[in-house]
Amino acid sequence: MNSRPVKTKVAIIGATGYTAVELIKILLRHPHVEIVAATTRREDNPPISEIHPCLTGRLDLRCELLDPATIAAKADVAFACLPHVASMESIPLLLAEGLKVIDLSADYRLTDPDVYEQWYGHVHTDPTRLGTVVYGLPELYRKQIPGHKLIANPGCYTSTAILGISPLLCGGYIDPQGIIIDGKSGVSGAGRTPKLGTLFSECNESVTAYSVGNHRHAPEIDQVLSDVSGTNTEVVFTPHLIPMDRGLLCSIYAPAIKKTTEQELMQVFSDFYRESHFVRIVDHLPRTKDVIHTNFCDITVRLSRGIIHVFSALDNLVKGASGVAVQNFNLMCGYDETTALVDSPQ
Amino acid sequence: MNSRPVKTKVAIIGATGYTAVELIKILLRHPHVEIVAATTRREDNPPISEIHPCLTGRLDLRCELLDPATIAAKADVAFACLPHVASMESIPLLLAEGLKVIDLSADYRLTDPDVYEQWYGHVHTDPTRLGTVVYGLPELYRKQIPGHKLIANPGCYTSTAILGISPLLCGGYIDPQGIIIDGKSGVSGAGRTPKLGTLFSECNESVTAYSVGNHRHAPEIDQVLSDVSGTNTEVVFTPHLIPMDRGLLCSIYAPAIKKTTEQELMQVFSDFYRESHFVRIVDHLPRTKDVIHTNFCDITVRLSRGIIHVFSALDNLVKGASGVAVQNFNLMCGYDETTALVDSPQ
Amino acid sequence: MNSRPVKTKVAIIGATGYTAVELIKILLRHPHVEIVAATTRREDNPPISEIHPCLTGRLDLRCELLDPATIAAKADVAFACLPHVASMESIPLLLAEGLKVIDLSADYRLTDPDVYEQWYGHVHTDPTRLGTVVYGLPELYRKQIPGHKLIANPGCYTSTAILGISPLLCGGYIDPQGIIIDGKSGVSGAGRTPKLGTLFSECNESVTAYSVGNHRHAPEIDQVLSDVSGTNTEVVFTPHLIPMDRGLLCSIYAPAIKKTTEQELMQVFSDFYRESHFVRIVDHLPRTKDVIHTNFCDITVRLSRGIIHVFSALDNLVKGASGVAVQNFNLMCGYDETTALVDSPQ
Amino acid sequence: MNSRPVKTKVAIIGATGYTAVELIKILLRHPHVEIVAATTRREDNPPISEIHPCLTGRLDLRCELLDPATIAAKADVAFACLPHVASMESIPLLLAEGLKVIDLSADYRLTDPDVYEQWYGHVHTDPTRLGTVVYGLPELYRKQIPGHKLIANPGCYTSTAILGISPLLCGGYIDPQGIIIDGKSGVSGAGRTPKLGTLFSECNESVTAYSVGNHRHAPEIDQVLSDVSGTNTEVVFTPHLIPMDRGLLCSIYAPAIKKTTEQELMQVFSDFYRESHFVRIVDHLPRTKDVIHTNFCDITVRLSRGIIHVFSALDNLVKGASGVAVQNFNLMCGYDETTALVDSPQ
Repeated sequence: MNSRPVKTKVAIIGATGYTAVELIKILLRHPHVEIVAATTRREDNPPISEIHPCLTGRLDLRCELLDPATIAAKADVAFACLPHVASMESIPLLLAEGLKVIDLSADYRLTDPDVYEQWYGHVHTDPTRLGTVVYGLPELYRKQIPGHKLIANPGCYTSTAILGISPLLCGGYIDPQGIIIDGKSGVSGAGRTPKLGTLFSECNESVTAYSVGNHRHAPEIDQVLSDVSGTNTEVVFTPHLIPMDRGLLCSIYAPAIKKTTEQELMQVFSDFYRESHFVRIVDHLPRTKDVIHTNFCDITVRLSRGIIHVFSALDNLVKGASGVAVQNFNLMCGYDETTALVDSPQ
Repeated sequence: MNSRPVKTKVAIIGATGYTAVELIKILLRHPHVEIVAATTRREDNPPISEIHPCLTGRLDLRCELLDPATIAAKADVAFACLPHVASMESIPLLLAEGLKVIDLSADYRLTDPDVYEQWYGHVHTDPTRLGTVVYGLPELYRKQIPGHKLIANPGCYTSTAILGISPLLCGGYIDPQGIIIDGKSGVSGAGRTPKLGTLFSECNESVTAYSVGNHRHAPEIDQVLSDVSGTNTEVVFTPHLIPMDRGLLCSIYAPAIKKTTEQELMQVFSDFYRESHFVRIVDHLPRTKDVIHTNFCDITVRLSRGIIHVFSALDNLVKGASGVAVQNFNLMCGYDETTALVDSPQ
Repeated sequence: MNSRPVKTKVAIIGATGYTAVELIKILLRHPHVEIVAATTRREDNPPISEIHPCLTGRLDLRCELLDPATIAAKADVAFACLPHVASMESIPLLLAEGLKVIDLSADYRLTDPDVYEQWYGHVHTDPTRLGTVVYGLPELYRKQIPGHKLIANPGCYTSTAILGISPLLCGGYIDPQGIIIDGKSGVSGAGRTPKLGTLFSECNESVTAYSVGNHRHAPEIDQVLSDVSGTNTEVVFTPHLIPMDRGLLCSIYAPAIKKTTEQELMQVFSDFYRESHFVRIVDHLPRTKDVIHTNFCDITVRLSRGIIHVFSALDNLVKGASGVAVQNFNLMCGYDETTALVDSPQ
Repeated sequence: MNSRPVKTKVAIIGATGYTAVELIKILLRHPHVEIVAATTRREDNPPISEIHPCLTGRLDLRCELLDPATIAAKADVAFACLPHVASMESIPLLLAEGLKVIDLSADYRLTDPDVYEQWYGHVHTDPTRLGTVVYGLPELYRKQIPGHKLIANPGCYTSTAILGISPLLCGGYIDPQGIIIDGKSGVSGAGRTPKLGTLFSECNESVTAYSVGNHRHAPEIDQVLSDVSGTNTEVVFTPHLIPMDRGLLCSIYAPAIKKTTEQELMQVFSDFYRESHFVRIVDHLPRTKDVIHTNFCDITVRLSRGIIHVFSALDNLVKGASGVAVQNFNLMCGYDETTALVDSPQ
């Protein structure tokens, strides 16, 4: 048909994990996207539906080994769902072949290669590109995204925390030191590689903190909040594992450093996110259940005993990973930011 | 725009429960639907997003009390998500006002008012309409649905079991007496009214059978299978409550009454559902996880020790309730059967 | 047998809930206890195993209506598992009949009737007894418990938080204002009365904060910590509902107000609880899974970015309710504090 | 003290898994047992509480490598919690050193080495001992257990199914061919080795059948039921994985082959288990929640449309593994069968 627009051809690099399958499901709803390739390390070219049975009858594609030139011959944009380190090894090759890349790993999020090395335990092998990459949180960097060839898609805790803190820091309501972030995440955030700690019988009927004082999302939160607020920010971030598949809640606590009211704070948040379709400032205390399988982040504020409380909830696999990746893709390619991420127009 | 097609206006009658919110979410994705009304018994006209916070920012609508004339002035089609008895009280009034109706309750599923009375403990108050109503399982009654004013949407266990048994009965592979159906359902199937038995602390970390020998879906399964196969069918149906939100698996056991193979049986199923997009005949043993949040029913067959085993899985709230309701709506209104229920065309 | 000691006869007042059944299970292991009565509001005297099927074959007892004189004729000690208000109506009558009482409700925990009225919305009807009652947290008030006729058993969040904070406050490591307590509780803490918010399909696969700034355990925590530390303490307490049956974790954050190390803080905790068998100071981050179905409270400390982090975990139904009730009972009656609450001696 | 009886010294061979920790917890309650050794393959002799943090402060023991002579120098009885194959390699050595052994693996359950090889894919390396070993289901083989040196502890599905079927087969109520067993198990039954299929995010919110027609408990059920009933029995056994930690329900279906009533069948079960403390014949439909953390197996019977339905529920880790192991230990050593497995005498 003449009027049918040309579709953007995309490849999924590293297709076996939870963010990859979530990404594929979202892209299958995208009217302007065709998924042309998916890579794994398996040599036997399995159908994608063998790896993710939920895709049976929905995507007829065999996985292939990652060969950047082959991918570039088919695709315009690559979504890299690789683990860190593997990501920075492949992405320069994909970019060199002319592909645009959205990287869902942590490899290009931090701007300082020394900070990367300190937290990830590896020398960064593509350090000159760091700092030229845009951080793909559209609510804060929407205008920088178009035109970029490489987007560093943010971490799940990171987005949840940053969206909950930025309006307060920018408004001068809280001090940039000592903000307490108590994060609670579903288990899918830990990935699909079999490990003792993510076995059903270990996580179910249990809650625990982990990586106290040393979770890799902490320097990322610090960096972005420092950038947004213009002041050196150091948060106290403590993640917890919750017995549920998906969903992430950050409960954020910081003393108010100027006189304010709950009503004023709610207004501050509403104003801050006026242009951001996917942030819903709600009156009630957000439940992760109300945002899972959506690209929304629900936020509310309370003021009690002088402490500002923010509750920020999203789906770690959607708004925390694959949904925001598509949001970035839309901005990068000139589509409406919400395409494939919202209901049809009513 | 001139070319923009007129949308079908729909009302949700009884909007507080789980099937209603699922239905709304599906209809919000439907390009040819506008939701114009939602009713509850609350006198204070709450916004729908107060009842279902997940709809915040997605549907801007206040609930109203059910008044058939008011509904008919706004809407073309009503989805009735009322409990049984309440449904048969309201539906004649809605039909009298000229509305088309898809009834998600059990009130119009059974063709014999005596059977209804026996299983539901109420005299049927609209008995003459029974038997003129089409049973809304499109995989079996696709051709009868268009043109009808009232569709009886099937029960969740019923659809799962019937889809798993019909090809075998019609093919003469099993006897119509004594088919064993062991059903396993998530808790959302029990509804949103607070009851001891569906409290988290009662259902979680537990599995139990319930309604053994007297579940109301049994006569419905019998009736439809008898109709489809042309022989009097009486199944043995035992539901179980499983600690998960949604998802339903029927494990079906029946002795093979003629010589056959697994391969032949798989072919029988594939042929039977060749025209049915939403039934996926899969090689692997279906997991409910792979069908939840979709309108698919995944089915496989095994033959062991002379017993044919069928495993049939769907999402009780989607293919088992609200998804099939939209499938019926599409057929009733002349839209493509899969509209709003599948991915975008790739 | 001559040497067989006389057993203490106990009654369970209000036997239908989760704390009652947990209490019964513990008492059934107690070598010096005989359960002689259980009360409910049901007029039909149901067997206790009808209300709690898990007790089938374990306790052969019919429930009765609460009549203080009848109870006193049979029992020496009453465990009151009534809701608040109901508790303060019955307990004076039970005491008047000569019974010793352990009250698992909140009615006698707060010492100031005005504070009670403010937080519970009821005038306290037994105000003169308040303040004469010992607060049944043996780790802090072990010596006061023997000899008392009425023990106010602490709340579940309260115990978890107080055990995690007391050593720091008493040691002068933190300021008594602005301690952040982020609590995470399993759903059984919300009781067995059917409510929308505790339905499986509402809580499962979800996490949310609730009662922010107004949870009734906050004034209780303040009161006890103020008493223990001798300074006016005001905490910031935020509870969250976690999709699990039982288990409670408090993540506690407070700036260190004097120079210290993690090692020193661990030693402070170890010293503080040297005599307390049920507090385990552990090196790892505690999981609720490791304490459920036990009377242990597992605690660890971390120091990061100047903030002292304490993680304190227990079973809300055992150490947070019925286990500590038996601990109090043991102290009250002169049995070893750990009887029925630990393994056999190895 | 003079009158203090000598304790039986036991060793746990293979202490890292779920059955081992459950066994240790039960043995810690046993007044006549001392746990003197626990083995793992770890060379660093970790404290048992490092492997199972729930044992902190409860068992002060370092794990050791398995050396039969060393174990025999300390212990009287060994509980072998090894995987199959590893078990039959070690057990002859333990027996040769004079230890009594209770084997929780499958290696000595089947009497025919060819059947073992067919189902387990390994040649049995200790075939002459097979058939001399008693099958440790005390409800059926109570009298054979005392005096034996080696007990083959039964599988979890096996016990549940056999206890539910034996009275019917022995009473001639059902045919020994074609009994349908639909099993539903919590995930701990799959062990503690990390595997994709038992990750939280794979099992949670899902139900699926597995090992259809080829689960290794099937030949074990056949063998024991054939022995008990004296007729060649072949069951149809289909296990399902349920998103819960522990608990196992078998729903059993078989046509009645003689005229009977539900009441008569209930009496048959009550009579059959009159001497068996741990089988509770209950009127209600059993929930796994009511038996977990106990050694009970709850059973009820229904008769509907000519099909006898049996529902049999137990805790796969207790009555299905470690609890029955202690029951066997008690019988083997001359202790009361219920020691450490029931409440204190009331």
